[in-house]
Amino acid sequence: MEQRKIGVLGAGQLGRMFVEAASRLNVEVHLLDVGTTAPAKQICSSDHHIDGKFSDASKIEELAKGVDILTVEIEHVDAKALQTVQDKGIVKHIHPTPKTIALIQDKYLQKRFLSGKGIPVADFASVGPEDAESSQAGAAKIAPLQVQAIDEAVKQFGLPLMLKSRTQAYDGKGNYVLKNVEDASKAVESLGAGSRGLYAEKWAPFVKEVAVMVVRSVSGEVRAYPAVETYHENSICHSVFAPLRHNDPAVAQRAQDVAKKAVAELEGAGVFGVELFLMSNGELLLNEIAPRPHNSGHYTIEACETSQYENHVRAILDLPLGSTALKVGSSAMLNILGVADLDADKAAIEKTFAPVVASLGVPGTTAHLYGKSGCRRGRKMGHITIVGNNDAQVRERYQILVDALDIAKKAADEGSSLPKELTIQGATNVSPDKLFKGRYASLQETVDKPVSSDFSHPHPLIGIIMGSDSDLPVMLPAAQILKRFAIPFELTIVSAHRTPDRMQVYARQTAARGLRAIIAGAGGAAHLPGMVAAQTALPVIGVPVKGSTLDGVDSLHSIVQMPRGIPVATVAINNSTNAALLAVRIVGSADVEVLQRMQEYMDSMEKEVLGKVEKLREQGWDYVVKK
Amino acid sequence: MEQRKIGVLGAGQLGRMFVEAASRLNVEVHLLDVGTTAPAKQICSSDHHIDGKFSDASKIEELAKGVDILTVEIEHVDAKALQTVQDKGIVKHIHPTPKTIALIQDKYLQKRFLSGKGIPVADFASVGPEDAESSQAGAAKIAPLQVQAIDEAVKQFGLPLMLKSRTQAYDGKGNYVLKNVEDASKAVESLGAGSRGLYAEKWAPFVKEVAVMVVRSVSGEVRAYPAVETYHENSICHSVFAPLRHNDPAVAQRAQDVAKKAVAELEGAGVFGVELFLMSNGELLLNEIAPRPHNSGHYTIEACETSQYENHVRAILDLPLGSTALKVGSSAMLNILGVADLDADKAAIEKTFAPVVASLGVPGTTAHLYGKSGCRRGRKMGHITIVGNNDAQVRERYQILVDALDIAKKAADEGSSLPKELTIQGATNVSPDKLFKGRYASLQETVDKPVSSDFSHPHPLIGIIMGSDSDLPVMLPAAQILKRFAIPFELTIVSAHRTPDRMQVYARQTAARGLRAIIAGAGGAAHLPGMVAAQTALPVIGVPVKGSTLDGVDSLHSIVQMPRGIPVATVAINNSTNAALLAVRIVGSADVEVLQRMQEYMDSMEKEVLGKVEKLREQGWDYVVKK
Repeated sequence: MEQRKIGVLGAGQLGRMFVEAASRLNVEVHLLDVGTTAPAKQICSSDHHIDGKFSDASKIEELAKGVDILTVEIEHVDAKALQTVQDKGIVKHIHPTPKTIALIQDKYLQKRFLSGKGIPVADFASVGPEDAESSQAGAAKIAPLQVQAIDEAVKQFGLPLMLKSRTQAYDGKGNYVLKNVEDASKAVESLGAGSRGLYAEKWAPFVKEVAVMVVRSVSGEVRAYPAVETYHENSICHSVFAPLRHNDPAVAQRAQDVAKKAVAELEGAGVFGVELFLMSNGELLLNEIAPRPHNSGHYTIEACETSQYENHVRAILDLPLGSTALKVGSSAMLNILGVADLDADKAAIEKTFAPVVASLGVPGTTAHLYGKSGCRRGRKMGHITIVGNNDAQVRERYQILVDALDIAKKAADEGSSLPKELTIQGATNVSPDKLFKGRYASLQETVDKPVSSDFSHPHPLIGIIMGSDSDLPVMLPAAQILKRFAIPFELTIVSAHRTPDRMQVYARQTAARGLRAIIAGAGGAAHLPGMVAAQTALPVIGVPVKGSTLDGVDSLHSIVQMPRGIPVATVAINNSTNAALLAVRIVGSADVEVLQRMQEYMDSMEKEVLGKVEKLREQGWDYVVKK
Repeated sequence: MEQRKIGVLGAGQLGRMFVEAASRLNVEVHLLDVGTTAPAKQICSSDHHIDGKFSDASKIEELAKGVDILTVEIEHVDAKALQTVQDKGIVKHIHPTPKTIALIQDKYLQKRFLSGKGIPVADFASVGPEDAESSQAGAAKIAPLQVQAIDEAVKQFGLPLMLKSRTQAYDGKGNYVLKNVEDASKAVESLGAGSRGLYAEKWAPFVKEVAVMVVRSVSGEVRAYPAVETYHENSICHSVFAPLRHNDPAVAQRAQDVAKKAVAELEGAGVFGVELFLMSNGELLLNEIAPRPHNSGHYTIEACETSQYENHVRAILDLPLGSTALKVGSSAMLNILGVADLDADKAAIEKTFAPVVASLGVPGTTAHLYGKSGCRRGRKMGHITIVGNNDAQVRERYQILVDALDIAKKAADEGSSLPKELTIQGATNVSPDKLFKGRYASLQETVDKPVSSDFSHPHPLIGIIMGSDSDLPVMLPAAQILKRFAIPFELTIVSAHRTPDRMQVYARQTAARGLRAIIAGAGGAAHLPGMVAAQTALPVIGVPVKGSTLDGVDSLHSIVQMPRGIPVATVAINNSTNAALLAVRIVGSADVEVLQRMQEYMDSMEKEVLGKVEKLREQGWDYVVKK
């Protein structure tokens, strides 16, 4: 469709997924990377690729000559060479601009820039000479100055103190956590002994790591993808969960706002990965920005209306940006990292791909393998995206892959072999159902367990609340129904009159926590359902609980006669069974599998009654009296 | 991951999308097709591709030598040559088997086979010599026999009569609709004058064309994708809508069952496209089977948990089959067919891609262009998938693309140029919002129109029903609320007591028609909400309508006091406003955009009341009395 050609510096997995998106739009891509079989080159047949380093100025110039637009899949490129090809007029557009890439390459300058623009970042300070150029001078001269600066930073920010290399730092490389001020020299030495610029950051004891992908058009329009939670192990991205769930309903929006504001300040078009720390007080601190598609945005391929890769293509071609909305209820991503080195363990690849084999039996999963031949411990060999209707379903699917990963890691560490079902040979002919136990299997297993062993699901869809434990006998049938339908729920006590603050907090958090409906039981004045409905946009189902007077009619009228504007879905007095069945129908209205189960439940009720018809016909009209 | 190599006969768009899926699983693919730049070869860098025809026995043998498994992206291959390479032991596995491919190549034998297995097909009869081989004999001898057989077929099946070539027929080529028996000779001549075997089919005046993709494992397990509606123009697939919507809730399941049964009877693994006719009496007739990924299954890439292409890879590698479930609420596919010949119109490609340009501004769309250089009228150049939460949203998005297509076709027919906004240059820098008016824009435009101009939406999410038009004054506020929230709805009269049959039919169709909830208003005995709830698995919201006696308490109790098993979500007496707000909350519980709008509505109510606080403070306590 589009005749402009794009040159990409780097042809790893990010380039590979970029090429996928570009091919779908008939866009010609030329790749610069070492070798002829780099991941992106494998799926982009062309005589125009260049074999060379993306940090090699002459190769960059060669690439530039053949294309209209240059972009990067990695920020560790020769930014000066990029600037030169642009200055020479060899290529018209470079996205993002060499200036932006250079700014991001130096984490200290990046932080100073962002801080200057009013973006919240952790407190930081230069360590030693501030001018990045001068740090190229003799290490012997600079190292003592750095040690001295660390001393000062400790006084300012306390311990532990995060020390970081300004450049060439990624996946935790170039970071040093200083716990004692006496270790300052050791830190400087370990980080490159003065040959690389350093800076210090106040320790940020975050409660969650958050990331937001932002796409920026040539004209500066910015669109944010949903905020996600990222989970790192050994400073390498392990998993991503989208959307971000949090008690504070405003956090996700604030994360998007901070990310958009930051990216809006940069120059050039494309996709940017923004990493943030969420602090215990709800504060968000921007950690760093990647000027390219990002690991935390892989999930967008299967889970969003337009993937980060297609939006990168669109942005740099100056085409309209695509929708960044989620198209599924919930999603997760698991990185497939090498669990062993191939030269030490012949089965390194097989073990590494064990979660992929497991995923073949799990609905909603898509494996992306990057076509890398060598396998090293920690190397990014692929990833798996998981999608589902809701968090509970996605977490259940995710857990199966993580279990496989744990088995594979153990096998790698112990030098033992994989269980057969985690090998390709074992997966062959195995019915998926043998691997995958099905939706919330663990929940269904509890149906017949005594009530005393029941606790709330960590990712509930339905909240069952009541004013007091005296309402439990009336409300427990609702829990039993939800278990029968394998709908994850939580059950707790929230009193409108005795815990008004708790009620407000509970009601306002529900949607952000991923709930779909609330069942509230109340007797007498029965304000709970209506007061909760006034503070959440979710459907609230009210169960009138029968008191010692008025037969529950007081509760019924109190719950059902809501003023125009705030509805409560009221069911029969003391009938929490119907409240739960209504909640199942609400979930089922957008989930065909649940709807199907409700239809089967209704069919079974019909069959049961027809059975009684038969019994009455066989045993006579007084069969009930007789038993 | 998987070391086995796959060879594919054909490297067109189906091969291209197959290669995409294979690459993601690190599976090596060798392609056989003419040239070096066939669509699939473009995205599969390899020294192993073969330049040649997939109907060339020697090339097939060459391909087979380099791989472990052979498959096809097109059925018009040399099935005998395939059988030979398998018999010679050159390749271990061919999927589907050469026998299956040969059977499907001959539509008459295919039909006879399916009919023999009890699969419902249109009545059919051989035309002339039944042995396909003998039809290679002199046309002069056979043609008169064929004309005679057509005469007999007309007597048996009536007119019009469908005449079909047994082989090499696709996209309407090889079909002849006989309207007068006198045209029999002309038909025979037009279909190849006896040189190709023919057969006759009883005319099938279908109400819808339906397709089901089925994946079959090596061991014979079959899994069906959702039944979809296909729409053809000039016998070429124009659009696909998933899932199939129909009044009869059992049709989709029956279509899947027929398709699975048919594919289970075939040999070999892989994905099969099954085309069916849905007749006015609800009968389903199998039209034909394609032994490969199919145009009607393109939508699965964006809309299903596992795409048809990945499932084809998995099936032929003997890996566990992936989930065929939809992961979005609704989906559509629009083929991008050449609107002009490139040698006649220099702007043929630009015009052909006009809907693609339009799609860049429409959320939920993904364009797939096939990398074909030549453009001919009717040539498949690409397709666009549309996903959304529900049918209404998908149809609204789809319509924008079809509008662009119509403009482009007109420009092609008249030799005029495209409007600027449908060219790539025009799309540049245009904010998507200028192209896309937003969710159900037309619906929102009617909010302030008089009631007399209101009619039901063709793809409603909510049904508003009541026993009589005398309930309209009470129920209309519900319609106004749904319009305000841009939730598509229908409004009609259904009486439990006066139209019990209509009520049953209405209630049972709702889920299959794509509705999400029903609002039922009723007074007095007020049986409608409960009786509807007894016959649908969707949530039913009851509005007690106040009668002339008992203040509506009769209706309230009648609606709310449902027996255990069947819930009705009851709202306040005469308060259809709250019923609609509850319906919006139900839709919003699985649609963040709608949930957001409900939150904004609640915020606006708060603001309105706070305004009154201010007014009272400014104008005095008697300000209401004064006005």
